[in-house]
Amino acid sequence: MQTAESSASTPSAQKLADLYRYWGRRQTPGDDPGMDLLRDLYDGWSQFAVEAEGVSFTTVDDDGVKGIWALPASPQKGAILYIHGGGYIGGSANGHRKLAAHIAKAANVPALVLDYRLAPEHPFPAALEDSVSAFEWLIGLGHDPATLAVVGDSAGGALATAVALHRKDNGLALPAAIATLSPFYDITATGRTFDTNAGKDAIASDRSTISGLHALLLGEGITPENPYLNALKADLAGLPPVHIAFGGDETLLSGGEDFAELATTKGVDVELVVYPGQQHVFQMLAGVDSDADDSIRRIGEFVRRHIGA
Amino acid sequence: MQTAESSASTPSAQKLADLYRYWGRRQTPGDDPGMDLLRDLYDGWSQFAVEAEGVSFTTVDDDGVKGIWALPASPQKGAILYIHGGGYIGGSANGHRKLAAHIAKAANVPALVLDYRLAPEHPFPAALEDSVSAFEWLIGLGHDPATLAVVGDSAGGALATAVALHRKDNGLALPAAIATLSPFYDITATGRTFDTNAGKDAIASDRSTISGLHALLLGEGITPENPYLNALKADLAGLPPVHIAFGGDETLLSGGEDFAELATTKGVDVELVVYPGQQHVFQMLAGVDSDADDSIRRIGEFVRRHIGA
Repeated sequence: MQTAESSASTPSAQKLADLYRYWGRRQTPGDDPGMDLLRDLYDGWSQFAVEAEGVSFTTVDDDGVKGIWALPASPQKGAILYIHGGGYIGGSANGHRKLAAHIAKAANVPALVLDYRLAPEHPFPAALEDSVSAFEWLIGLGHDPATLAVVGDSAGGALATAVALHRKDNGLALPAAIATLSPFYDITATGRTFDTNAGKDAIASDRSTISGLHALLLGEGITPENPYLNALKADLAGLPPVHIAFGGDETLLSGGEDFAELATTKGVDVELVVYPGQQHVFQMLAGVDSDADDSIRRIGEFVRRHIGA
Repeated sequence: MQTAESSASTPSAQKLADLYRYWGRRQTPGDDPGMDLLRDLYDGWSQFAVEAEGVSFTTVDDDGVKGIWALPASPQKGAILYIHGGGYIGGSANGHRKLAAHIAKAANVPALVLDYRLAPEHPFPAALEDSVSAFEWLIGLGHDPATLAVVGDSAGGALATAVALHRKDNGLALPAAIATLSPFYDITATGRTFDTNAGKDAIASDRSTISGLHALLLGEGITPENPYLNALKADLAGLPPVHIAFGGDETLLSGGEDFAELATTKGVDVELVVYPGQQHVFQMLAGVDSDADDSIRRIGEFVRRHIGA
C-alpha cells in the first residue's frame, strides 16, 4: 500500500464531506419519494468537478447498451468501460460524466460511461449482467480485450472487478487492467475502518448505512457472500493488474486493504493508493483538488501502461 | 409568425410534458426544503437530450463570470452568450449544457453557458447584472459585439433580450442577434394563452404558477412592469434581429406573439416560429424529437446569418 502525500482535510475535501452530509440530511428515512430524491441528489455528484477540456461526448443506445462515450480529442487504441457508483440503487452516466471524462483524458482512450439497471427495480445481478454485456459490446466494436480496461467507483468499482471475475470464471479473455476508486468491496460492512473511520466518513458513516442497502439490492437467491458482489469471497487468482484508490477517511477502506492482501496472496499485481483526509470517491473533485488530480493521473498512467496505449 | 409543420403531441413531447407534471407533483407547496428540491429537479431538465457530438466543454470561473464553454470542434468567429431558464430561481449551466451545446454546434460558434445569481437569495436585477457583465467579459476576450449573439430559454430568453435592451439604453454596441426559446416575456401572466392553453401547458399551467414567482424574484423597488423583466413594457426600437421559438401548447405563447407584434411595429426584424403540440423549451428534446432538432437548426442558421460566421 502506498500512502500518497497529502494535506489531510483540504478545503475541497471538506466541501465533498459537506455535500455527503447534506445528502444525509435531505434523505429522511421513510420519506416519500425517497428513491427519486436519492437519484436526483446522486446525479449532482460531480458538481464540484471542472469539465475535462477537449473531451466530447456521444450518447449511446445500441443493442441494449446505454450510456455516454467520453471521447478525448486524439485517443489511442483501446477503451475503458466505466461503471459508476451509487450503491447499486443510484448514480448515472450523466452524473459521473465529468469524472469519467477526466479518466478517459488521463488514459487517452475513450470511456464508455455505462447506464446499467438499478435496484430495487432491478436487483443484483442485473447491474452485473449489464456490465458484462457492455464489455462484450465493446469487443463487438472490434476492441481486443487486451486493450480494454474496466474502471469504476464505489459500487461500480466492485462491478468492474466482478466483470473480470465473471469473464475469468467463464473462460473468456480478460481485460488488461482493473482500476477502482473507493470500491465497494466490503459489502458486509465488517471491516475495521467502519470503527476507526466512523466519525470521519461523511457518506457511509456506520454499518447500518450499508446493511440498509441489502434489502434493496439483493435479488432472489443472492446473498452478501455472492463472489460477484463480494470480491473478498471470490477466488482472485488470475485477475489482471488492479489499481485501487481510497480516501483515508473512508469506512470502506479496510475492504480495499483486505482485497489487496488477498489478491496479492493469489499472485495478482495490485497497487493501493490511500489519500489521507479524503472522502469516498474524492476524484469527484477533479480540477479543484490536487489529490483528485493526482489519483486521476495515476489511474490514467496505470490504464495506459497495461492496455499498451 | 410561422407555424412549423409538426405532428402535434409526439411521444417525445409527451415525455417532456410528463416530466413537467412529475416536477409539479414533487413540489408540494410548503414542503421543506422546496428550493433545493426545485433546483435538483431543474438540473435534470436536459435528461432526454442526447449529447451533441464533437462538442467539448471548459469550466469558466474568471473575473466573476461562472459557467461552461460549449466548444464545437472547428468553430467560426464569434460566440453565443447562452442564458439558461428556470424562472429566475432555478436552472444551471450544467442543467442546460446539452441544449446549449446543440445550439453552439448548429451555429458553429462557442457558447458560454452562464451561471448567474438566482433568486430568492439574489433577487432581480442580480440575474440581469450578471448577464450584462458576462456580455462585457466576452467583449473583453476580444469579441466584436457584431459577432456575438445572446440566446436563452424561458427566463433566460427574457434575460437575453434584456441584455440587448440594457446595452441599447446605455448607448453600448449591440449584439448581432437575439434568439429566444419559449421566452418568459409575459411576466404578468395576463396573456390570452393562459386561458386557451391552460389545460395543455404542463409546466406553467395557470396564472398562479407565475404570480407565485413574483414574491421570490422581485428585488427592492422592482415591479413586474420593469422593462428589463417585462420586455412588453420596453421600448423595443433599435433591437437587433430576434428569433423566437415557442411550443404551441404553452401558456407563455401569447407573450411571444405580443412581443413579436410590438417589436415589428418598432421596426425590429422578428421571426416567431411556433411548433404545434410542443411544450415549454421543447428543444430540451434535442436529438430525440424532430421539432426540437428543427428549432435548433433554425436558431443556428439565424445566429450564423447575423454574426457573419
